[in-house]
Amino acid sequence: MGPTYVSRYRSRIVERLRCVLAGDAPLRNVLRYHVGLEDATGAANQAFGKLIRPSLTLFIAEELDGDPEDALSAAVSLELVHGFSLVHDDVQDGDEMRRGRPTVWSRWGEPQAINAGDLLLALALAEARAAGDAVLKRLLDAVIEMIEGQALDVSFEARWPRMDEYAAMIDKKTGALFRCACELGAVLADAPREVRNRLNGIGRELGRAVQIRDDLLGIWGSESELGKPVRADLRRRKKSYPMVAAAGRANDGEWRILKAAFAKETPSDEALREVVETMERLGVRESGAREVEAHLEGALSELERLPVSDDGLRQMRALCESLRWTPETGVR
Amino acid sequence: MGPTYVSRYRSRIVERLRCVLAGDAPLRNVLRYHVGLEDATGAANQAFGKLIRPSLTLFIAEELDGDPEDALSAAVSLELVHGFSLVHDDVQDGDEMRRGRPTVWSRWGEPQAINAGDLLLALALAEARAAGDAVLKRLLDAVIEMIEGQALDVSFEARWPRMDEYAAMIDKKTGALFRCACELGAVLADAPREVRNRLNGIGRELGRAVQIRDDLLGIWGSESELGKPVRADLRRRKKSYPMVAAAGRANDGEWRILKAAFAKETPSDEALREVVETMERLGVRESGAREVEAHLEGALSELERLPVSDDGLRQMRALCESLRWTPETGVR
Repeated sequence: MGPTYVSRYRSRIVERLRCVLAGDAPLRNVLRYHVGLEDATGAANQAFGKLIRPSLTLFIAEELDGDPEDALSAAVSLELVHGFSLVHDDVQDGDEMRRGRPTVWSRWGEPQAINAGDLLLALALAEARAAGDAVLKRLLDAVIEMIEGQALDVSFEARWPRMDEYAAMIDKKTGALFRCACELGAVLADAPREVRNRLNGIGRELGRAVQIRDDLLGIWGSESELGKPVRADLRRRKKSYPMVAAAGRANDGEWRILKAAFAKETPSDEALREVVETMERLGVRESGAREVEAHLEGALSELERLPVSDDGLRQMRALCESLRWTPETGVR
Repeated sequence: MGPTYVSRYRSRIVERLRCVLAGDAPLRNVLRYHVGLEDATGAANQAFGKLIRPSLTLFIAEELDGDPEDALSAAVSLELVHGFSLVHDDVQDGDEMRRGRPTVWSRWGEPQAINAGDLLLALALAEARAAGDAVLKRLLDAVIEMIEGQALDVSFEARWPRMDEYAAMIDKKTGALFRCACELGAVLADAPREVRNRLNGIGRELGRAVQIRDDLLGIWGSESELGKPVRADLRRRKKSYPMVAAAGRANDGEWRILKAAFAKETPSDEALREVVETMERLGVRESGAREVEAHLEGALSELERLPVSDDGLRQMRALCESLRWTPETGVR
C-alpha cells in the first residue's frame, strides 16, 4: 500500500513466505523464484509484487482486533493463491515476462510451471488451514470462483463479450480474491455479518479498480510499469476492458476495424495500431480512468462506514491513491 | 476391485461425484466429461476409471467401522485429486487419448485444461474438508507429495535416473495417493497408530504395483487395455520402469542403443523397436511382472496382519488379482 503500510506489513509477509517455501524439496526453488525471494541462480532477491491482498487482510484484521498470528497465515495463503494464479496464467497466455523477469514456464518449461502452480495452490490451502477452518472455507470458495473467472476469461478469447459479461468475469477472476482478502479480516476478528458484507463490498470495488487499471496499463502503460511487453493482451486477442468498451461503442466502420484486426490468429502491428487509435477516438482511455476512479471512491466510501481508526483511513486512502490511473500517465 | 467390490461401492461413489460436479457453473461440464459422467455432448455416460483409490478408502473405513458418510466424502475427494492429476498430466505429456476418449486439453484446449485441473483440485479439497480436519490434513500432505513426484518425473525426461531414484519418484507420484487412500480408512475410524502404519505400508505396495504395471502396459500393453496409443511414453522419452531397468542392466553396446534412440527429440519407430528388443533381451518384461507380483504379495501379507473380516480379505485378493500383470498377456 502507501509507504507506511508497506513498511508495516511487508517484512512479516515476506518472512512467512520464506518459511512456507523453505527447503530442498522439489520445485521449492522455482516457487521462491516466482514470488521474488530468489533470483534464477538461487541468490536472495527482493522482487516481490505489491502484496496488496495480504496487506489488506492484515490491515483489516488489525483494525478489527483479529488474532495477528492467524491473520498472517491467512494473508500469506492469499498471496500464495495469487502466485498460483499468475504461474498458470503466464502458461495460458504464453507471457514470457512478469514483473520484469522471465516467467516460470519460460525458464523451467510448461510442464514444470503447471506443477509449480499446482504446488502453490496446495501450499496455500495448507497455510489457510493453519489459520482455522473458517479461513480455509472462505478461501476455498474464493479459489473456486477465481478459477471459474479465469475459465470465462479464456472462453472470451473466442468471442466478444458484452460489458456486463466482462464485469461478471472480472468480479470472479480478480474480485473473488480481493473480496476474500477483505472479508478474511472480518472472519479473523469474528466480526458481525454487517461488517463482513461491507468488507465484501470494499473488496469488490478494489478488485474492479485493479483489473480495469491492469487492462488499461496493458495498452497504454509503459513496459517498465507493466513488467512485460505492452499490447501482449491485444496481440493474443484477449477481451480486456478497452476491447469490450470499444466494441460496445463502435459504429459500423469502427466495428469492422476491430473485427478485421482479430480475424487473424496474430493481428499485425499495423492492425493493432488502428485498433488502439479507434479505442482512443471512442474515449475508452478516459472512460476507463474514470471507472477506476469511481471504484476506488466506492471502496473508500464503504470503508468510511466501518469502525476503522483515523490512521486506518489514511492508510486506505494511500492505497487507493497508488491504484489510481490517469490517461495522462498512460500517454507514452 | 473384483466384481463384488465394484457393485458394493461404485454406485455410491458415482452418485456423490455427480453431486459435487453438478450445475451450470463454468467448467463443470468439462469435469463431468473428464471423470466419465458425461460424453462430449453432455449426454449421460458411464466411462469411469477403475475407482480403485476411493474404493480402498471405503473398504478400509468399513472394515474398521469408520463413519460411512465422512468416508464417502474422503473417498470422493481422492478420486477428484486423481482426476486433477490426470488432466494436468495429459497436458504435460501431450497425450490426446485417455481411457479411449479424447483428453480434456485435446477437446477444450490447454488453457481450459489447466483451469479444469485447478478446479478439480480445489473441489477435491473442499470435499475433503467436509469429511473433517484430520482427513483434509492427510489429503493435503498427499497432494503436496504427489505434485513433488510429478515434478521429479518431469525432471527425469532430461536425464537417466537410477532405479532407486525411480522408486522414490513413484512412491511420491503414485504412492502418495495410494498410501493416503489406505490411511484415510484408519483416520476415519480413529484407528491406532500401528494400524495406520500398516495401512500406509499396504498403500505403498499397491502404489508401486500399479505404477510399474502401468509402465509395463505402456510398452507391452494393447491400445484397448491402455486407452491410448502404446509406446507414447517411450516416444516422449519418459523414464518409465522398463527404461530405467534396461539402462541399469545394459552392457556398453546396449547402452549405446538406448542412448542413441533418445538423443533425438522424437525417436524414430525403428529406434524404438530396437529399444524394446533390447529391453526384452535384458529380461525387463519378466522382471517387471515379478516386481508387480511381489508388491501385490507385500500388500496382502500386510493386510493379513490387520483386523479385517474374511470377506474383506477375499475382496482384497480380488483387487490384487485384477492388478496382476503377466508378460504373456503383454505379448501382442
